[in-house]
Amino acid sequence: MNEIKIFSPASVANLSCGYDILGACLGGIGDEIIVRKTNKKGIIITKISGQKLTKDINKNVAGVSACALLKDLNYKKGFEIEIKKGIKPGSGIGSSAASAAGSVYAINELLGKPFSKKELIKYAIIGEKAACGSPIADNVAAVLLGGFTFVREKNDIIKLNSPINLAFTILHPQIEVKTSDSRALVKKNVSLKNMVKQSANLGAFVSALYTEDYDLLSRSMKDFVIEPLRSILIPNFEKLKQSSFKNNALGFGISGSGPSVFALSKGISQAKIIGKSFEIIYKKLNVNFDIHTSYLNNKGIQIIESK
Amino acid sequence: MNEIKIFSPASVANLSCGYDILGACLGGIGDEIIVRKTNKKGIIITKISGQKLTKDINKNVAGVSACALLKDLNYKKGFEIEIKKGIKPGSGIGSSAASAAGSVYAINELLGKPFSKKELIKYAIIGEKAACGSPIADNVAAVLLGGFTFVREKNDIIKLNSPINLAFTILHPQIEVKTSDSRALVKKNVSLKNMVKQSANLGAFVSALYTEDYDLLSRSMKDFVIEPLRSILIPNFEKLKQSSFKNNALGFGISGSGPSVFALSKGISQAKIIGKSFEIIYKKLNVNFDIHTSYLNNKGIQIIESK
Repeated sequence: MNEIKIFSPASVANLSCGYDILGACLGGIGDEIIVRKTNKKGIIITKISGQKLTKDINKNVAGVSACALLKDLNYKKGFEIEIKKGIKPGSGIGSSAASAAGSVYAINELLGKPFSKKELIKYAIIGEKAACGSPIADNVAAVLLGGFTFVREKNDIIKLNSPINLAFTILHPQIEVKTSDSRALVKKNVSLKNMVKQSANLGAFVSALYTEDYDLLSRSMKDFVIEPLRSILIPNFEKLKQSSFKNNALGFGISGSGPSVFALSKGISQAKIIGKSFEIIYKKLNVNFDIHTSYLNNKGIQIIESK
Repeated sequence: MNEIKIFSPASVANLSCGYDILGACLGGIGDEIIVRKTNKKGIIITKISGQKLTKDINKNVAGVSACALLKDLNYKKGFEIEIKKGIKPGSGIGSSAASAAGSVYAINELLGKPFSKKELIKYAIIGEKAACGSPIADNVAAVLLGGFTFVREKNDIIKLNSPINLAFTILHPQIEVKTSDSRALVKKNVSLKNMVKQSANLGAFVSALYTEDYDLLSRSMKDFVIEPLRSILIPNFEKLKQSSFKNNALGFGISGSGPSVFALSKGISQAKIIGKSFEIIYKKLNVNFDIHTSYLNNKGIQIIESK
């Protein structure tokens, strides 16, 4: 195999109760990445379409993670990377994670899978660190493993039971919020009382996934710690939330560090109804926006073709 | 049925990663409670053996919780309660929870079960509040439901998957630590970083119970928040911890608010080996102590006889 084309999906991190811990993989929206073997040592990014991003391999997350992987493999030749960005940077649905995970996944496939998907996470988060300042694994884990993922520590990732009838509605208000800026809004301390409430919700969310108890899942998707601080960045956050629950969402919250928001529902038709209700709210504002609906993507990153 | 005798077991709360959230039910150690129907309205405690405790129904936790139950039922007659305490108050293995849960369980049985076990929790925690100042459900949930229990909120309790091959070793150093004093040691704020670490461990613990992944269970049983503050109260805490892990414990920590400590292991024989190692450490100290080993008690409170 000399060339591979993959689809590296968008993802939702945090999911209200799991700040820096929970991730979920989306379907239908993501980056397409082509990687080709070359005889020249090292990585080059030959083309980026869809978004204006640097091709500098020391700055572009796909380059950074790919270089980290090659360094560990002591590989004598190299790879060229083409990226068709389907995710807008700064949208909060894992744009950097898709590119960082995508490049290492593709290279690993071309080299005959020296690493497992879980092992690739450590290279992908080196790209994430370049993008947002922190080596957070929540989005890259979801992209690589699919479904719902849980970061106990950055090198200890669990794939949770992932009921595939669950569906997401994503609203992306096109106001750029940098992850690093959004992280700065978060306070450094939490009351013990809120720690207990928040972690009780996280544990209950995990239990609810295994027992497929959607009422409990819904009761657990609450955020006492981060949402009150960050939601001020998102126009009409409360209206969107109310509208989600009026339309039977199981949960609603900020996707990653925002500004995208997500609603989780049982089934795609409900997700689409919620999407319509978001559209009605946002059409009244002077803000461009995208709406996306998808089932929970239990497969994660996928090969489109290889030759 | 006019009279019932029940066994109301001891329990371990917190389990390192689940402060005020996790509970586990023990076997072989607990209170025996006899409750008889009487024609006189209200509750009387006729006898308490094993420990010196008040028979005042407004102060004894068994009386307080029983009165709360009867109030809601608008019951015209009454009950007399005899308690044989098998658990020392202030030991940290749910002495008040056993009595509070035991009295309401017994009365509920005598009345033909107007309430489910889950519904009884709210009455038992009224007794808990009288004992320790807070209406915490972690111990009473474990006593009533058995196995591993999870308090999302005080009225939203989950019984987790409870692998019955797990066993506990309890060391009770006989130094009284009041729950209210031990709670005062805990700081009111937590760093966000520690909140994330602690809640990641709690979520991973829950996942590990469902997937029966004992390595993950073991990695998750860590406490960055409470243990560093409270363990100073417990003589030779670090030695006990080291000895537990040297003897293949999955986890070790403070039981509830202490001073008892627990080790969790796979199988009762391992729990007994750990108990022996605790004995060696404590025999060198000038502190009286008890050691108890038991399987995880998946049944919880049990009827001994009724007539």
